Amino acid sequence: MHVPLRPLRILRSLLFNSRTVAPQRRRRSAAAMRLVQFRRHGDRDDVIRVGVEQGEGRGVVDLRAFDPSTPATVRELLELGDAGLEAAQRALTSGQCVVERSHIRLLSPVSSPEKVVCVGMNYRDHCLEQNAPIPKEPLIFSKFPCAIAGPYDDITLPAESQEVDWEVELAFVIGRQGRRIKEEDALSHVAGFTVANDVSARDWQMRNGGQWLLGKTFDSFCPLGPALVTTDAVKDPHNLGIRCLVNGEAVQSSNTGQMIFKTAALIAWVSKFVTLAPGDVFLTGTPPGVGFFRKPPVFLKKGDVVECRIDQLGSIINKVV
Amino acid sequence: MHVPLRPLRILRSLLFNSRTVAPQRRRRSAAAMRLVQFRRHGDRDDVIRVGVEQGEGRGVVDLRAFDPSTPATVRELLELGDAGLEAAQRALTSGQCVVERSHIRLLSPVSSPEKVVCVGMNYRDHCLEQNAPIPKEPLIFSKFPCAIAGPYDDITLPAESQEVDWEVELAFVIGRQGRRIKEEDALSHVAGFTVANDVSARDWQMRNGGQWLLGKTFDSFCPLGPALVTTDAVKDPHNLGIRCLVNGEAVQSSNTGQMIFKTAALIAWVSKFVTLAPGDVFLTGTPPGVGFFRKPPVFLKKGDVVECRIDQLGSIINKVV
Repeated sequence: MHVPLRPLRILRSLLFNSRTVAPQRRRRSAAAMRLVQFRRHGDRDDVIRVGVEQGEGRGVVDLRAFDPSTPATVRELLELGDAGLEAAQRALTSGQCVVERSHIRLLSPVSSPEKVVCVGMNYRDHCLEQNAPIPKEPLIFSKFPCAIAGPYDDITLPAESQEVDWEVELAFVIGRQGRRIKEEDALSHVAGFTVANDVSARDWQMRNGGQWLLGKTFDSFCPLGPALVTTDAVKDPHNLGIRCLVNGEAVQSSNTGQMIFKTAALIAWVSKFVTLAPGDVFLTGTPPGVGFFRKPPVFLKKGDVVECRIDQLGSIINKVV
Repeated sequence: MHVPLRPLRILRSLLFNSRTVAPQRRRRSAAAMRLVQFRRHGDRDDVIRVGVEQGEGRGVVDLRAFDPSTPATVRELLELGDAGLEAAQRALTSGQCVVERSHIRLLSPVSSPEKVVCVGMNYRDHCLEQNAPIPKEPLIFSKFPCAIAGPYDDITLPAESQEVDWEVELAFVIGRQGRRIKEEDALSHVAGFTVANDVSARDWQMRNGGQWLLGKTFDSFCPLGPALVTTDAVKDPHNLGIRCLVNGEAVQSSNTGQMIFKTAALIAWVSKFVTLAPGDVFLTGTPPGVGFFRKPPVFLKKGDVVECRIDQLGSIINKVV
């Protein structure tokens, strides 16, 4: 495997107040934060700013305004290891460079990851819903990274599908590279948690020779956010209420404790196959209540508003267009 | 969908002799070249150099030695559009900054693409081999980009699989961004062609709830190269002899004319679902002769040497370890 040259990383490490470029073995840093990516009103369309929320839904510290040598994306910040998070924490503590909420638009907290790893059939109650056996090992599929959308972006219904469905999911983001990671070490590779909607075109999921990829990866089919809530800021990621509301009506309501393969087990499993890298996003499966298994089935239509909400992490709200 | 900020692209466009940053509509540039990525002996492990071969297997022009403002990777060179290819052509024409073959190690000609798009069941003769019907639409799956390996790198047999198989494939690389690309415009989005081995762990391909991803994406399971041969340098990509040799014995031998869905059709199809970006790699399917369908089946073992060869493009040769 080629480890890609990351010239920005090298450049930034020279500019940035970092003790070392190499990712460090991090157990639990003291950095409890809500990292975001955002755009200020008036910014060009291709601008990404990295920030830290002062609290859910509150003002955002613009990290580059505080220190111009801050990396340009959350992925690159994570690649700096502890030094990146410590710098973000310093900026947050300073109380400076705060942008008011009304002046920004949140983007997905991670963009252009190397991988979007997805897990199927990973909630006990979702397996029961479809009379399916509890899987003995994780079922892994993927989306292409260009499917990622912001927490309040639109979900675009493609003309090619008549069966677009919702799936609220707990997502986590890798903070440290690793291969063949042991389950007991796995949590030290997690940067934090966020909320995802694993939007799924059921007709295409069942077509394409049975390979789910195409039905899962239309552009805009992976809304993510609102913030990357670092591991230290989440009390127990496997005891969180998780809900999806369509036009204000609760359609999914469960608890992340229902997950069959939890964060550490998923990292240990997937890293048997591939090297995990900072910024990689995992979507950990959905609870019951998707439209496809309703009687009769229900699918998203233009004008619908889908809210995915997880305790301690927040909500993403996406209009269907 | 978020278009990621590419700060390097902006930086480079300021440094680099480029008339415009925006990708241009390119029909057929006059650039017939063999683009490569390489490392000079003595370079650090994370160095990637971009070069142009003076001919298959001949000396390589080091583009950054010729012009220090050249982008750091072939993907970033492609993102510059025509300006990038023209600059490479100027360097090649100069005859300067040539590194002898014995002083370098070739890497994969593209690294860290956003997508590795793969096509299954795309050769008529491969369908016949397994008594499968000719597909009515392309069957699309994927590998994670970290599976990519260099043209002469080792293929690592994972302890988890007993059924690792070869698949020689024609690969092409996207040169220009696009969504919903019409078939008649599709070739203008192709930067060039190269050779791939779609290494496949058959046991895992059939496991994982029927999703092929894990069996296809172990680290090192996508050797690629030796060069990205630009579109203008390939006479007819759909009339090329394509062969795989294991320990010198021909196991696959066909012609890319046997492909059911050809380059333009695949681009039109996949871009209905997702935005294609410069550097995206497509693996277009394999001809008959894989180990899995032999009687009895044959799989790769340590010490085997696999050569994948396509007319006009060259050979990749990978030892199994």
